[in-house]
Amino acid sequence: MENEKMKKVKEVLENNAALKHAITIMHWDLETEAPLLAVDKISKTLGYLIGESYSMVINDEFKNLVYSINTDKLKELDRKIIEELKKEYFEKLEKIPKEEYKKYSELKIISSKKWEEAKIKNDYSIFKSYLGEIIKFNKKIIKYRGYKGHPYNTLLEDYEPGITVKEADEFFGKIKNELSPLIKKIIQKNISDNENEAKEKFKKMIFDIEKQKELSKHALDIINFRFDKGVLKESEHPFTTNVDNKDVRVTTHYYKDNLLSSLYSTIHEGGHGLYEQNVDDVISDTILGTGTSMGIHESQSRIYENMFGRSEEFLSFIYPKLDIMFKLGENGINFNIFYKIANEVQASFIRTEADELTYPIHVLIRYELEKEIFDNLDNETDVDELAKKWQDKYEEYLGIRPETYTEGILQDVHWSDGLFGYFPSYALGSAYAAQIYNAISKKIDINGKMKKGDFTEINNELKEGIHKYGKTRTPEELLVNMTGEPFNPKYYIDYLKEKFSLIYGLK
Amino acid sequence: MENEKMKKVKEVLENNAALKHAITIMHWDLETEAPLLAVDKISKTLGYLIGESYSMVINDEFKNLVYSINTDKLKELDRKIIEELKKEYFEKLEKIPKEEYKKYSELKIISSKKWEEAKIKNDYSIFKSYLGEIIKFNKKIIKYRGYKGHPYNTLLEDYEPGITVKEADEFFGKIKNELSPLIKKIIQKNISDNENEAKEKFKKMIFDIEKQKELSKHALDIINFRFDKGVLKESEHPFTTNVDNKDVRVTTHYYKDNLLSSLYSTIHEGGHGLYEQNVDDVISDTILGTGTSMGIHESQSRIYENMFGRSEEFLSFIYPKLDIMFKLGENGINFNIFYKIANEVQASFIRTEADELTYPIHVLIRYELEKEIFDNLDNETDVDELAKKWQDKYEEYLGIRPETYTEGILQDVHWSDGLFGYFPSYALGSAYAAQIYNAISKKIDINGKMKKGDFTEINNELKEGIHKYGKTRTPEELLVNMTGEPFNPKYYIDYLKEKFSLIYGLK
Repeated sequence: MENEKMKKVKEVLENNAALKHAITIMHWDLETEAPLLAVDKISKTLGYLIGESYSMVINDEFKNLVYSINTDKLKELDRKIIEELKKEYFEKLEKIPKEEYKKYSELKIISSKKWEEAKIKNDYSIFKSYLGEIIKFNKKIIKYRGYKGHPYNTLLEDYEPGITVKEADEFFGKIKNELSPLIKKIIQKNISDNENEAKEKFKKMIFDIEKQKELSKHALDIINFRFDKGVLKESEHPFTTNVDNKDVRVTTHYYKDNLLSSLYSTIHEGGHGLYEQNVDDVISDTILGTGTSMGIHESQSRIYENMFGRSEEFLSFIYPKLDIMFKLGENGINFNIFYKIANEVQASFIRTEADELTYPIHVLIRYELEKEIFDNLDNETDVDELAKKWQDKYEEYLGIRPETYTEGILQDVHWSDGLFGYFPSYALGSAYAAQIYNAISKKIDINGKMKKGDFTEINNELKEGIHKYGKTRTPEELLVNMTGEPFNPKYYIDYLKEKFSLIYGLK
Repeated sequence: MENEKMKKVKEVLENNAALKHAITIMHWDLETEAPLLAVDKISKTLGYLIGESYSMVINDEFKNLVYSINTDKLKELDRKIIEELKKEYFEKLEKIPKEEYKKYSELKIISSKKWEEAKIKNDYSIFKSYLGEIIKFNKKIIKYRGYKGHPYNTLLEDYEPGITVKEADEFFGKIKNELSPLIKKIIQKNISDNENEAKEKFKKMIFDIEKQKELSKHALDIINFRFDKGVLKESEHPFTTNVDNKDVRVTTHYYKDNLLSSLYSTIHEGGHGLYEQNVDDVISDTILGTGTSMGIHESQSRIYENMFGRSEEFLSFIYPKLDIMFKLGENGINFNIFYKIANEVQASFIRTEADELTYPIHVLIRYELEKEIFDNLDNETDVDELAKKWQDKYEEYLGIRPETYTEGILQDVHWSDGLFGYFPSYALGSAYAAQIYNAISKKIDINGKMKKGDFTEINNELKEGIHKYGKTRTPEELLVNMTGEPFNPKYYIDYLKEKFSLIYGLK
């Protein structure tokens, strides 16, 4: 009886997965190659498909079926599927009327394209009314769905279950108090003329795009990203998307004057990609067959990008290849300088290009702005004022004031795509990463492996500890399982202090 | 009343267009970049979407609605839409049961992938059972749909309305009788040592793929293919696909030892692309908003590829650019030789690489094989025998026997994708092209334009005479409209005789 019902549920989910598959591929296409004038039609088609996908699961018949199942009689995976269904569809999605949901989906697509244009032209006026609309929609959504404590909690919950304003305030408080003094010290420290000169030279070098593409592919090969179930491509803002564990797609972005940007974007997205490629086959085809939260996802991207990718040992492994491809030595960039360049701490404007140490400050700024936006659900957010606050906060926390929109509020794609509540997971993910790194280092000589560019055992640890479970475990369960304790930001703070004090000769 | 009904019809068609949009993009993705292991899931999703699209239009409610409309009361475009609906959906599609249709759609996807693998490995055993299945399905489809005269007529009708075995026999008879003697003379003609040496040298040259990509993009710019509503990409077998007139995508294929292959594939597909980009806005969003037949479509691709693209004048325009990019002169390839290389007549195995003169013979061979396959709907086609017959016919008509499958039956994608009845349209299209070229040349100094690479006026003639009408006119209406007479193969035969007699000094 229960099995019969479960079978019916799975039939609906299978058809819904087909629609979502099409939605994923059309989004991918939109972001990576669709022609400019095709956008309106794509937005309309996506609106239709998203609406159909909504109707397929949000209806009384399906709801009654789902709630009629006695989950005690199901095997564990099926039970978790039903729980996820109830949570995602009937506690979240159902609260938003279909027409609103569809309209919002179409708005997000147009808005993302407007953002792209605005960013390229450094013209906030192209985008700001769309941003206003997106914010308005998010406030409405919070009202539809309700909230406990701070209204922003409802959005935070979408990206990092278990984290509310209370926990986030505490975490970012530590970031501010513990890291700001170190950042200040480093930024004020005198760098030798030699080092400065070499760094300036590196910034002026031109790196052939075709060679950068080759390097990005090579980097994914090194970390064992599988191309028989993956794709690497280019887009304005690097991202990862996936259908299941056999179709995982990452993008990067190439700048001819910035070698490290594409390399580390690629490794970052590669970390996301590995997570998705390693989800267990048994759960890959279910609604649980993807990363459990954005925080855990970012822990994987950032552990590859920073803790592995920017380590002295990994850089020593890859430097000879880079030297041959881009003539670094000839240009005065020896390995020691290169390691320092890859870990240069700077007060800078762009989050995605920021060093590991100042990175969480960029996130903190966004967190504070978002919290304030959603503090009041009934007022209209002044988007001009918001852009000004962005500048103010950079001045307050990093001592620099972005004078262009592209270096300020227009830099990130997230808000244009309705992703409010997402940013905190970047910093949380970095902190999870440090805790996870610490646990792995007790079993594996990570630095020894990095020197050889050998990711086999490390990947396996992450697969067995995190990746293979998909959404069948919560972030907290994964952390306890892998590290023996719940989230503890101490590892992150300690790691950053240790690494950068050493690089900057402060201990 | 009639308008109310038409509105309802259009609502259904609009939703169906959204599904077809998704299907088009997923196909495009499958052919151009989806990872290998993603194919099964993509095939399943496509099967689902195609099934949904089928159900949306093939049902009693919609059928009754369509047939209840008094088309006399509609404006012309709406009347043509209803006629097209009746023809495509209720006289063709409805005859095939949904489950069969879905199964066939999924089979075609797997079969295409198997073909690709088989072709690359030169291993017919990987593909032949799929070919057998595809043929079996096509015989079944002919039975479902019925036929008049020869069973093959039902398939021919899909690609070139108005052409049956009777007309095709007549046309190909002329090809055989009029062109074979000329081909024989040319192939037996002695070529000077100098010329032979240069040709051999060209065949051994290596052409940087990145530069070839740049050239392909340049070629599309020259013919005014619009990238704000189009995409150029790479695939195993070049093709064109489109959503509407604002999203038209072409592919090419690059070989490092063959510059002309990618260049002419690109121009060929560019010709298809221009046709679709130039469909009038008013009809682009309807089911009539695409090329009217494969024959007319091929007339456009082949007029750009051959009659414009391989003309002495166009080649004289583009040669200096090629010389700079690929150092032709330095390698002994001067313009005169280059023109001869681009128009070299050879008995060769590969249709898509064949010269203009032997090309229709390649098509003739496929036509004869297909006609024989569908001569009997009840027997099982022996796919091993079919591969042998392929060899025999090449020996009979061109005096050469392909000794590998890749050079023989595995060379074309079409059969793996169920496209039987399609090939004849390539030769018909070439013949239409000659008739159309003749008509344009009475108004425009084509050669003068070609010398300057100026396609503005020529494109406009084709747009106004053919492209803008989409499917609202039949092939015959278009030909009469543009050339003043119905299809007349004389122009094609005369054109080929004239051009190649001149190149080979036979007159």
